[in-house]
Amino acid sequence: MIKAGIVGGTGYTGVELLRLLVNHPQVEVAVITSRAEAGVKVADMYPSLRGHIDLAFTEPDVAVLGELDVVFFATPHGVAQNMMPALMATKTRIIDLSADFRIRDVQLWEKWYNQPHGAPELVAQAVYGLPEVNRDAIKTAKLIACPGCYPTATQLGFLPLLENNLVDPTRLIANAASGASGAGRQGKIDNLLTEIMDSFKAYGVAGHRHLPEIEQGLRDIQPAGVAPVGLTFVPHLLPMIRGIHATLYATALNVENLPDLQALYEARYANEPFVDVLPAGVLPQTRSVKGSNVCRISVLRPQNRDTVVVLSVIDNLTKGASGQAIQNMNIMFGFEETAGLNVVALLP
Amino acid sequence: MIKAGIVGGTGYTGVELLRLLVNHPQVEVAVITSRAEAGVKVADMYPSLRGHIDLAFTEPDVAVLGELDVVFFATPHGVAQNMMPALMATKTRIIDLSADFRIRDVQLWEKWYNQPHGAPELVAQAVYGLPEVNRDAIKTAKLIACPGCYPTATQLGFLPLLENNLVDPTRLIANAASGASGAGRQGKIDNLLTEIMDSFKAYGVAGHRHLPEIEQGLRDIQPAGVAPVGLTFVPHLLPMIRGIHATLYATALNVENLPDLQALYEARYANEPFVDVLPAGVLPQTRSVKGSNVCRISVLRPQNRDTVVVLSVIDNLTKGASGQAIQNMNIMFGFEETAGLNVVALLP
Amino acid sequence: MIKAGIVGGTGYTGVELLRLLVNHPQVEVAVITSRAEAGVKVADMYPSLRGHIDLAFTEPDVAVLGELDVVFFATPHGVAQNMMPALMATKTRIIDLSADFRIRDVQLWEKWYNQPHGAPELVAQAVYGLPEVNRDAIKTAKLIACPGCYPTATQLGFLPLLENNLVDPTRLIANAASGASGAGRQGKIDNLLTEIMDSFKAYGVAGHRHLPEIEQGLRDIQPAGVAPVGLTFVPHLLPMIRGIHATLYATALNVENLPDLQALYEARYANEPFVDVLPAGVLPQTRSVKGSNVCRISVLRPQNRDTVVVLSVIDNLTKGASGQAIQNMNIMFGFEETAGLNVVALLP
Amino acid sequence: MIKAGIVGGTGYTGVELLRLLVNHPQVEVAVITSRAEAGVKVADMYPSLRGHIDLAFTEPDVAVLGELDVVFFATPHGVAQNMMPALMATKTRIIDLSADFRIRDVQLWEKWYNQPHGAPELVAQAVYGLPEVNRDAIKTAKLIACPGCYPTATQLGFLPLLENNLVDPTRLIANAASGASGAGRQGKIDNLLTEIMDSFKAYGVAGHRHLPEIEQGLRDIQPAGVAPVGLTFVPHLLPMIRGIHATLYATALNVENLPDLQALYEARYANEPFVDVLPAGVLPQTRSVKGSNVCRISVLRPQNRDTVVVLSVIDNLTKGASGQAIQNMNIMFGFEETAGLNVVALLP
Repeated sequence: MIKAGIVGGTGYTGVELLRLLVNHPQVEVAVITSRAEAGVKVADMYPSLRGHIDLAFTEPDVAVLGELDVVFFATPHGVAQNMMPALMATKTRIIDLSADFRIRDVQLWEKWYNQPHGAPELVAQAVYGLPEVNRDAIKTAKLIACPGCYPTATQLGFLPLLENNLVDPTRLIANAASGASGAGRQGKIDNLLTEIMDSFKAYGVAGHRHLPEIEQGLRDIQPAGVAPVGLTFVPHLLPMIRGIHATLYATALNVENLPDLQALYEARYANEPFVDVLPAGVLPQTRSVKGSNVCRISVLRPQNRDTVVVLSVIDNLTKGASGQAIQNMNIMFGFEETAGLNVVALLP
Repeated sequence: MIKAGIVGGTGYTGVELLRLLVNHPQVEVAVITSRAEAGVKVADMYPSLRGHIDLAFTEPDVAVLGELDVVFFATPHGVAQNMMPALMATKTRIIDLSADFRIRDVQLWEKWYNQPHGAPELVAQAVYGLPEVNRDAIKTAKLIACPGCYPTATQLGFLPLLENNLVDPTRLIANAASGASGAGRQGKIDNLLTEIMDSFKAYGVAGHRHLPEIEQGLRDIQPAGVAPVGLTFVPHLLPMIRGIHATLYATALNVENLPDLQALYEARYANEPFVDVLPAGVLPQTRSVKGSNVCRISVLRPQNRDTVVVLSVIDNLTKGASGQAIQNMNIMFGFEETAGLNVVALLP
Repeated sequence: MIKAGIVGGTGYTGVELLRLLVNHPQVEVAVITSRAEAGVKVADMYPSLRGHIDLAFTEPDVAVLGELDVVFFATPHGVAQNMMPALMATKTRIIDLSADFRIRDVQLWEKWYNQPHGAPELVAQAVYGLPEVNRDAIKTAKLIACPGCYPTATQLGFLPLLENNLVDPTRLIANAASGASGAGRQGKIDNLLTEIMDSFKAYGVAGHRHLPEIEQGLRDIQPAGVAPVGLTFVPHLLPMIRGIHATLYATALNVENLPDLQALYEARYANEPFVDVLPAGVLPQTRSVKGSNVCRISVLRPQNRDTVVVLSVIDNLTKGASGQAIQNMNIMFGFEETAGLNVVALLP
Repeated sequence: MIKAGIVGGTGYTGVELLRLLVNHPQVEVAVITSRAEAGVKVADMYPSLRGHIDLAFTEPDVAVLGELDVVFFATPHGVAQNMMPALMATKTRIIDLSADFRIRDVQLWEKWYNQPHGAPELVAQAVYGLPEVNRDAIKTAKLIACPGCYPTATQLGFLPLLENNLVDPTRLIANAASGASGAGRQGKIDNLLTEIMDSFKAYGVAGHRHLPEIEQGLRDIQPAGVAPVGLTFVPHLLPMIRGIHATLYATALNVENLPDLQALYEARYANEPFVDVLPAGVLPQTRSVKGSNVCRISVLRPQNRDTVVVLSVIDNLTKGASGQAIQNMNIMFGFEETAGLNVVALLP
């Protein structure tokens, strides 16, 4: 049994970590922090956890956290980076679910997040926690930067095409839609049920913070010498709580000699426990991954034209955040990669 | 490991049984039947189960089912009773989620279900599978009649009041609301998203089939000599998938000498693994039990008047159907009662 | 054409007033105020109004408002009462949608709203704007206190029973459910889509501010000498935007001599343009009144027992607030009572 | 006052026609047909219409329909074409909301709809009823083929770009999402609330029947000599009732010399009563057109790259079907184009 801590446990990624960790056979959640709710029992805030956990929120304390085996940051961006210099000096290993260490180019991060970075010297030490790409580096990492939700769905969808240089990388399109839990648990008018139920809209079209993260991730897996990825990313807000659906478009470079895409995708993900390439003709639905850590993917070429369409679904709070964080932890500590994550999606 | 079968596995209680059983440490699902879908892989119909189960639906066959340790009926009413005479002659034990064996008065059953009963001679052998009332009888039962969803929420809510004869039993009110999955998976216009989303309505007010079941169950637990329960039951349809919320009203018989109801409820359910009496002042929400087998209950007396209000929530597919069926199975086979049922509700 | 003003136009009752008034043949909206949004075009805030209205929000100014024919207050409670002394001295007539002048007993108001009343001397001048009860007084009123949403649905449902003293008034039950727009447009965590979608709960069971308003209204219509109404009121929150459904319970005093309730209700509301008694056997749905000013009602006596059940639905923003305010205005100014209100519910 | 008939009035486009026509100042609905529901009062089927219409459904009869001024077909595809030869011989004018006469190439129609066409000789007489393109031809048309919902949102979005040959027409992408009412009112499992709420999916990616309609419409408005439009069309199903959101992608041909797209769109639609180009930086939401006949459009070029993104929203039942049909009727009969259509969207 390892001991885990969660910093910033009052948000949705925090409660999602708890939902999964309380049933993890090799982990004990020992500490959960929240400045605002210090002293409150976790189960009083989240009644779904009554009977599963008896902890109360505490003030974050590096001395305490540093003695744990692993610390998850489930905080808004800007928080983890400030505690990180002190925490990196302790024995614990760290999995940051926020955006603080995802982008290697500090200036780019500062531009998109519109603030100075609090620990630029540590950015290079962070391993980008997408197991399907970085599994080996994750095993030994001290600090994991967990991918964002849109970036996870988008990268897993484009990966086989870009690794094999089968499409024009310069004009990729990611048309994605997310449930409202992606916006977190903040009392903003924009996220009221009365503002977003029974409605659908695009947002952040002029520029969403996940764009540079996705472009960086996709460029990392391109073969050498190829024109770098350029992406048009249009996120939309769905009138529901959980789920991301990415509809990806790319133009085949050489449609006559294109390999069988279905076979290509199946081969690429054959050994991945959390990527499921659906049979030809079956399209994914977000409900098929609700509460599960699986990404389900379909690849098509409609009308046999040269536009390739990839559909990729995840639960934004699970594979898109907390589940993936636990998958990283499993890899880091040599546990079965699926430990604690064998949850079946809640359908219907 | 015991071997389990599911008859009629294509409906929502069937897929819910599978969601829970595939992670049950002591059960292997060996057979799942469906006349309509025989030959189809379960995971092709329910993609949430891809990677968790490799079975295909088969035609129901008593010879096969009779060799199993336990058979669940997840069929519409009228089906189980026809297979039951043959199946009761085999070694298997049976848990019927349908209404076929819930009502001991066969004539009453035939009136409410508007058809002759197919196995009236077996009705007396069935044990009503509400563990909080019948745990001992369940242990040795050959045939369990699993309670309905509304009856579970309603009986657990009224139980402490009626066992102690604290309220007028003749004019109880159960105002209940259910998610749409309670209506099953049938292609009816009434259940289309376009007909029931963004709307709320009562239904079956003139007479719902769960009324005689609830009245029977409540009368069973009344002390001897007391006027029998008379219930006004008004079900409503919620624009959501899962969850039952019962708001129960009763008139205190002797309000001056009423015991502390909070303490009474807490004591009654102190040892029940799946009944959670909320702290005074906390009201239950259906989301706090979504996908879990827990019933959460609050008891209040607004304005200190003599009307007692009990709020009781369950997930209709879990504690209201498949989870409770597994709880019964655990009791029957001497497993830990919570085995396979330690799922945390999916919140948010 | 009369000139109308709206104070506090940024909330949901404000935009609902505008939705209806922009198509009213005899009203011009001349002023709409908001301290927070002064200078912003209404249609920039509510794009549904683009092309229908060109006004911008202004600071509230009694000198300007006092010159109008009618002023609507669509403000939170506590606001109208502070402007009212000055405004009552002008020529305008006032329709207050807030709770400030609904309760005649100022001490009772102060207890439930937990603050001193700002204009106690004006409370007696206010006419309670439920046209089905107070039409004559409304015609000549200077100040209308528009009923709350739950009170409207509940009073219209109980009215025929209580006017005729057919039920025990001391133990009435109103089990009601509201869409989330009833909570207004405030950035609170409790009203986030992620907190209340896919869920259902009771709230305010210990005491909701609409309880004294409903009890006052019901007592007003009881015959002299009868025991005063005592109500248990349990509101619930629906995972949808608009609609109130009240399920009302009362015990018949003399079930053998009870008149035909269907006929009684039909007769009571025969001349009411906005109360629709459904045919026997038809139950109301909130979607049948979405965006319309109609209240639809059913009355039943399940199992021919002595509990009477009344079902009553309205749109909380229309008949429960802004539509009813306009109905009051039509009566006050001698317009056709249905002018501007002939909108058909949006179904599906 | 003209007299109108509706053939096939039990579906959602039928009730939407009625919602709008009962308040149209120059139209009386005289006949509404349904074979299945003949004899049933319309308001018994759709309680939202109680008090607004007293008609009952009747069997369709060309002799009766032929005497009317206008007949709307709100039928599934394949019905209108069979009645059309007889009806075209009468004095009435016809507005067909179905797909029967939208595609000029009869063979193409037969391929996509997988059945022989019942009146191929009449296809050439039909005018495609998109007022923003065909207003003059609509004025004098005997038979209008009303555009589909996706085609309306998509064509209005692409129009200014294609008319001016500003983008590569051969690789257009329309990523669109629709509320469930687009699938009509049929008792299919696929459309149950329990199957599609809380979920999002693409469908018909391999080939949707609206694809050839959109391609035909877009090719019609291209300048001569330009490569014909090729479109990748990916529809998605939203967990809500009404609304279409189209996210359109096109590659600018000459990004350095691209005109100001905002100004271009505003100019193109300046005189269109039902197309609203939003201010720069404002993105459309489907709720801003719920129940209204407006199409709201935004045009952007994210990151100043060469991919143009157009966002276009309509209510699929209003501008995407019944509202547009009435707009056509207004044009045909010389009424104010907005008569009966000045409805404000229901927000919130």
